[in-house]
Amino acid sequence: MTTQQLIDQIQQKKSFLAVGLDVDLTKIPQHLLELEDPIFEFNKAIIDATHDLAVAYKPNVAFYEAYGLKGWTSLQKTINYINSTYPDIFTIADAKRGDIGNTSAMYAKAFFEDLNFDSITVAPYMGKDSVEPFLAFKSKHTIMLALTSNEGAFDFQTLNLNGKELYKQVLEISKNWKNSENLMYVVGATKAEYFTEIRKIVPDSFLLVPGVGAQGGSLAEVCKYGMNANVGLLINSSRAIIYASNGTDFADKARTEALKMQQEMEQIMSLKFNV
Amino acid sequence: MTTQQLIDQIQQKKSFLAVGLDVDLTKIPQHLLELEDPIFEFNKAIIDATHDLAVAYKPNVAFYEAYGLKGWTSLQKTINYINSTYPDIFTIADAKRGDIGNTSAMYAKAFFEDLNFDSITVAPYMGKDSVEPFLAFKSKHTIMLALTSNEGAFDFQTLNLNGKELYKQVLEISKNWKNSENLMYVVGATKAEYFTEIRKIVPDSFLLVPGVGAQGGSLAEVCKYGMNANVGLLINSSRAIIYASNGTDFADKARTEALKMQQEMEQIMSLKFNV
Repeated sequence: MTTQQLIDQIQQKKSFLAVGLDVDLTKIPQHLLELEDPIFEFNKAIIDATHDLAVAYKPNVAFYEAYGLKGWTSLQKTINYINSTYPDIFTIADAKRGDIGNTSAMYAKAFFEDLNFDSITVAPYMGKDSVEPFLAFKSKHTIMLALTSNEGAFDFQTLNLNGKELYKQVLEISKNWKNSENLMYVVGATKAEYFTEIRKIVPDSFLLVPGVGAQGGSLAEVCKYGMNANVGLLINSSRAIIYASNGTDFADKARTEALKMQQEMEQIMSLKFNV
Repeated sequence: MTTQQLIDQIQQKKSFLAVGLDVDLTKIPQHLLELEDPIFEFNKAIIDATHDLAVAYKPNVAFYEAYGLKGWTSLQKTINYINSTYPDIFTIADAKRGDIGNTSAMYAKAFFEDLNFDSITVAPYMGKDSVEPFLAFKSKHTIMLALTSNEGAFDFQTLNLNGKELYKQVLEISKNWKNSENLMYVVGATKAEYFTEIRKIVPDSFLLVPGVGAQGGSLAEVCKYGMNANVGLLINSSRAIIYASNGTDFADKARTEALKMQQEMEQIMSLKFNV
């Protein structure tokens, strides 16, 4: 998917919501456990109930790997279902990968070719040659960690390096990498005040924003400081939507929560763009 | 496996060799492709031919993920084969994972419980709460990236922070994390001169050292600056051993290469420890 197609979808749906499919068998409605593939059935129901309100789905790969082969099968079925049923939706493999060049090329092949995700999250620590193999794919997007939503973000990301914090160095240096137009960045909603500084460095890039809801970030604050002329944000919500209910009404309740977020987003967009 | 068991194995085998199982179907002997699971058959032959010369095996998870479900099956069979046939061998899942706490806990479950690896490589960028879920496992080891063997190591890892590089901060700060006695670190052989400084910060920790051989690092140099009283090093070699031949003699040739390295290691140990 091209960046323009993502922007078009955002304008059309008046939403920039990404739903995180972090599926934990201990948290999903127990009646699903009788089915052959409870994780896929759960995802399918959530996707069917929210596809007109969300512009992206983001399975966190760890939750699938934790179930071994069965988990990988569920992940594969989920991405195939989205790609075949709702091909306009942007898909994010939240995998936080990164390794030496030939190894990153293997990860890129796994997620972009075999699974056919539109994007993947990657870690910056190993530098340019660990990320460029992902960037080499046309119409695919590489979402690099910049400033994350967790407490540990303050361990290294905000360390001051010659007067400039590490996460700013990550943003600036990566802008010079080959095919950097395919880069997006992860910036946590829990650090809304940082968006002003971040937008000075990457005014045009899309930012994937976790941490709204369960982790305490504010949608309005993030938009105030982080939105650009193309919106430029994908706000992720996982638990608040997918675990809104653990009864048989889980999909309806997920829709209700997604709708609340979409409506808040529509209002923010109408105020910002007078549409 | 406890650290002491690893040390005992090193003393007994007079080797601190880790063999990297980075299996690429385009590089293995073509006669194996006729078998049902070529990757596993290749690994099994390599392991059988080198298990008395190596103290550790390190499958790079990317190479398995790239083959989807089949790849995961091969990985599972490989780790099961090592654990059941050569239970004294130390196993490393080279996965370079790291995410927010609840997600890292899922990765830890996947690699430590389900697959039953002794250790996993992790990335430091997301800080303490992204690594501590791995450290919580008893008799398991978490091998964190410090200074990697690739060119991109100079993009961020060596950025200077008031006279101290990022990788040194990673070493120092992580020493204070809970269960940090379960931490080891990745330090590339291509940067042998850095080992002196690194040993000032982590004198006792095991260091996993990629980059000897194909990437140009020198075993003697690494040992000169990096070895401690317990050896404290695991030297990884992948391509130079596993792809020593792509004919039917691949396992024999792999043994020949592994033996060369083991003999060099034995000599270094005898000079250092007078044994």
